[in-house]
Amino acid sequence: MTEITILSPATVANVVCGFDILGFALDGPFDKMLIRKVSGKGVTIINKDDYNLPTEPAKNVIGGALLALLEAVPEDIGFVVESTKIIKPGSGIGSSAASAAGAVVGANHLLNDRFSKEELIRFAMCGEEVASGSKHADNIAPCIYGGVTLIRSSDPLDIISIPAPPLYVTILHPQIEVKTSDARGILKKQVSLKDAITQWGNVAGLIAGFMKNDYDLISRSLVDVIVEPIRSILIPGFEEVKKKSLEAGALGGGISGSGPSMFMLSKDEATAKAVEMAIIAVYKNIDIDFHTHVTTISNEGVRMI
Amino acid sequence: MTEITILSPATVANVVCGFDILGFALDGPFDKMLIRKVSGKGVTIINKDDYNLPTEPAKNVIGGALLALLEAVPEDIGFVVESTKIIKPGSGIGSSAASAAGAVVGANHLLNDRFSKEELIRFAMCGEEVASGSKHADNIAPCIYGGVTLIRSSDPLDIISIPAPPLYVTILHPQIEVKTSDARGILKKQVSLKDAITQWGNVAGLIAGFMKNDYDLISRSLVDVIVEPIRSILIPGFEEVKKKSLEAGALGGGISGSGPSMFMLSKDEATAKAVEMAIIAVYKNIDIDFHTHVTTISNEGVRMI
Repeated sequence: MTEITILSPATVANVVCGFDILGFALDGPFDKMLIRKVSGKGVTIINKDDYNLPTEPAKNVIGGALLALLEAVPEDIGFVVESTKIIKPGSGIGSSAASAAGAVVGANHLLNDRFSKEELIRFAMCGEEVASGSKHADNIAPCIYGGVTLIRSSDPLDIISIPAPPLYVTILHPQIEVKTSDARGILKKQVSLKDAITQWGNVAGLIAGFMKNDYDLISRSLVDVIVEPIRSILIPGFEEVKKKSLEAGALGGGISGSGPSMFMLSKDEATAKAVEMAIIAVYKNIDIDFHTHVTTISNEGVRMI
Repeated sequence: MTEITILSPATVANVVCGFDILGFALDGPFDKMLIRKVSGKGVTIINKDDYNLPTEPAKNVIGGALLALLEAVPEDIGFVVESTKIIKPGSGIGSSAASAAGAVVGANHLLNDRFSKEELIRFAMCGEEVASGSKHADNIAPCIYGGVTLIRSSDPLDIISIPAPPLYVTILHPQIEVKTSDARGILKKQVSLKDAITQWGNVAGLIAGFMKNDYDLISRSLVDVIVEPIRSILIPGFEEVKKKSLEAGALGGGISGSGPSMFMLSKDEATAKAVEMAIIAVYKNIDIDFHTHVTTISNEGVRMI
């Protein structure tokens, strides 16, 4: 096989109390990539969308990830990638991770799946580095593994799949820019031990809630006393969106990644749609373009078609 | 029924990375209490051991817990408790919790189990307050629930039982005094966000490891970057005990509660006994009396006999 088309899903990182350690894969939207194996080392990127992303491999997320992968390939081969981005860059639902993870999963398939998922994550993290300057796995891991993933440690890399009950996700994407570097820069470098204990109690509760299929426990645990109080000021209407979503029946939710998107989890589709209506009602009164959609946490990550 | 005898087990709180939120019940040692329901409000304590604990109810852990329970009882009744303490006070394996939890579980049985486990925990926390000045549940919860318990939140109280695979526990009790208030006083009130993230990654990994019966993950997650580096200086030989225990095959371990006891977890009894031998070899060279024993995490808490 010398050519493959893959769909690479959007993902939500952090998941309220799970800052820097948790993420999950969505059942959409997806980026689409056609990946062709060619002779001669190197990566050629062809963008088939209107985002004007760089095509020089070292400056492109797909390129950064595939160049890292090719370093581990002894054969004199390379890849041509036709990328159709659907997930808007900078939206906070793992756009760069979808590019990086999709490219390496597809390329690996053309190499007869010689690399492990952990190796693929390491390659894809080099793509993330091109996008944000830091090698983080909290979107890449769920993009490759599917479902809810825990990054217990980034160095050494330790990824754990967390079983979870069916969960519907309402996404709000306000059309504003929140730079990851800004969102990280405003965080305090020190936190109180008291808040840290509250946070790890909630993280423990959230993991237990997922694994026990206990929606009430998931809901009680979706509390972030460390990051959300600071970052939420970057998202217009955050408090009102959250309040109305909970009133509409959401289990909880918060900032997706470093924003500006927000996500809300619900037990069933009808509730997730009611939450979407509640969010639209709030955002209609805010002078910012936005869009919303309802999807699910998907146990599948990158898909081959 | 007007009289009951109960056995109340020792417990381990904190569990390395789970500072202030995790605990588990041991299959021994136990305190023994004979509890008798009598007419007329009040609590009478008869100590049948050599610890010279106060018998005035308001100054005694059993008394504090039972007085709190009696406030919720409309009938004009009280309790006489004959307490035989086996778990040495101040050892760090939940001696005061065993008194408080055992007393309220036994008394509740004489009241036809009218109170929920959560209510019993609240009463028992009033006993803990007598011992340490603070109402904490991290020993009481496992003492009453058995097994591994998560205290997601103390206020409001939110206790979650965490299923876990069979685990053997090696306990070292150096015969020194570490006051809970001192052990708490030396902790820093602020921690770095980076360390906090490492800690909650490990907490999440530990919960997932318990629930997936994944001994390797439990082992990798038993890391405390926040409390242990500070508190371990209060325990002579801490680093050497830990190092030799890991070499002998322990999954991991650390300070039990606020010390001075240490605990090490192992997958099987033979390993736990090898760990005990390794610990004895270290402590024989330290000029402090000590004792060790091997037990298991028990899914039973307070038992009626």
